[in-house]
Parts: sequence; C-alpha cells; structure tokens
Amino acid sequence: MRHTISVLVENKFGVLARISGLFSGRGFNIDSLSVGETDDPSISRITIVVHGDDVILEQIMKQLHRLIDVIKVSELTPGKYIDRELALIKVDADSKTRPEVIQIVDVFRGSILDVSLTSLTIEVTGTEEKVQGMIDVLRDFRIREVVRSGKIAISRENKTPPGSRK
Amino acid sequence: MRHTISVLVENKFGVLARISGLFSGRGFNIDSLSVGETDDPSISRITIVVHGDDVILEQIMKQLHRLIDVIKVSELTPGKYIDRELALIKVDADSKTRPEVIQIVDVFRGSILDVSLTSLTIEVTGTEEKVQGMIDVLRDFRIREVVRSGKIAISRENKTPPGSRK
Repeated sequence: MRHTISVLVENKFGVLARISGLFSGRGFNIDSLSVGETDDPSISRITIVVHGDDVILEQIMKQLHRLIDVIKVSELTPGKYIDRELALIKVDADSKTRPEVIQIVDVFRGSILDVSLTSLTIEVTGTEEKVQGMIDVLRDFRIREVVRSGKIAISRENKTPPGSRK
Repeated sequence: MRHTISVLVENKFGVLARISGLFSGRGFNIDSLSVGETDDPSISRITIVVHGDDVILEQIMKQLHRLIDVIKVSELTPGKYIDRELALIKVDADSKTRPEVIQIVDVFRGSILDVSLTSLTIEVTGTEEKVQGMIDVLRDFRIREVVRSGKIAISRENKTPPGSRK
C-alpha cells in the first residue's frame, strides 16, 4: 500500500541521509520526497511517499521516532489533509499545435512560464492525480522534460470542504 | 555560496540515501531537496539546494557522477533555468482579519485551499524569494504551519523572457 509520511526535523546535516537510509535499508522504495524549511529556518519538514508492507512501515516509523533530530513523525490519513504537487513540464509546441496545448493548460488551470518557437514550458499545481492527468494528456505532443516536486501536505481544518477544488 | 544541483537518477532504492550521504559526509547542509518522477516512472529527478565551499562542491559533483544509478548531474546556472517552489501555509484568520489575509493572497496570486472559523490555508507557487516574501508578510497574522516543496527547476528555452513573471 501507498503511504504518505510527514517528518519534522531539526535542520542539521546528516538527518536526511539517515532517514532515507532507514527506508532503503528495509527495501522500501521512496516514490517521492520533499524537504523544505518551515517558517522556523532551524526546523524542516520532510514529506515522503512510499509503498511497501504495512508491518515493516510501522517498524520504520518507530525507528524514525528514535532518531536524533527527529521532532515528530506522522502518517497522513487520506481525507484529513490537503496534498499538492508542483510540476514543470516542457512540451513540443509550434505555431500549429500551440493553440491546442494552451487550451489544455487552461483546462488544468496551469500557467505558461516560457515560450519558444518550438516549445512551451508549463507550471501546474494540484493533487498527484491531477498533475499525472495533465502529463498524460500532454504526452501526445511529445514531452521534452518533466520536473515534479513530489507531494507535500498540510492538515485540513475544515472537515467539510466547499466543493471539490483540486 | 548557494548552489542548485539537478541529478537524474534511476528510480531504485538506496540512491537517495547515497546521494544525501555524499553531501552530509562532506559537511554540506542541504537547504532543500525534491525528488519526483520524470515522465518515465523508472527515472527520477532530484533537485538539491546546498550551500558550502565551491571546491568541495566540485569534488562532490565528481563523486555523484561516479555513483551507480546516477544518469546525469548538472549545476543550474542562474538565468538559464526557471525555478519554482510550492508552499502550503496555514495562518490565523477570523472574521476580523480574514479580508486582509485574502487581499495578501490575491497580491501574491496565491489561492485558498481551506477555510475554518479561525484559519485560512493557502497555496502559493513562485520563486523561493516570492514564497519567502509571502511567508514574511503573513507572519503578522500568526502562521500555524508552513510546508514547502523546496525548489525545482527546468532549463529555459527562451533567453529573453517576456516581462518578469514570477
């Protein structure tokens, strides 16, 4: 099963290597990982998406708790948090195909960052599924490059969100 | 000095731990790191922002090249790429302060993901500086939580971008 783990850490060197080593040492592949500062620059948050055996994951979570520099470990339960991902996508687009690509960007509420005679560079944010959906649609135009941030997540305050903004 | 390194890797377990270990073993602190799949799920791209001695960084880059599973390593030169970061910010906002917070969100072209009686959850994308600027402005309203993706970057095709969209 797929899991999203959020780890709050002291921003010291070595902590990321120890944490990613814990997962790989147990044969867990990391699907995505993001580390960024919180509003306190001495504290960072790591968001990790992994898949693997649930029992082993529980063991890894316990070991994470015990690591020096780890402040808090939590598994994010679907529905209780909002998750987003950022992707930058460069796709072939010339005078003939550009209008159609721009139309797709509009549908996905993306924005265009760069234009050349033969390409468009696009920014899109949304759930992993939305980002994947846009990439899949753009594949028809030949994708040159995709850079994805990996999922980040924040706890939801309002348990009954208005509509389904993605 | 601050450097942004982009590493294309085979999506195998252990590779992230080895790469982050290379930096921490040399006393380099990682300011931010993002790993996400490319459009080929078997290949991931890691974007790393570090600061430290230039000579040691050059050595680390050489060692990165030699790692199994590393396909390509490049340092991103300012001006030749477009960089973006995604942040989710939860801030205190009640009926009195909400209009002012929403105004700030509009100025930074952010969007509101979640509303409760006492808080707003905001999504914003932009350069690191823009994201930091928004966080600094929102600090006045008491920030509850910040989750940042870390910087991701894509090479620029058009060397003379129209205006300065950030």
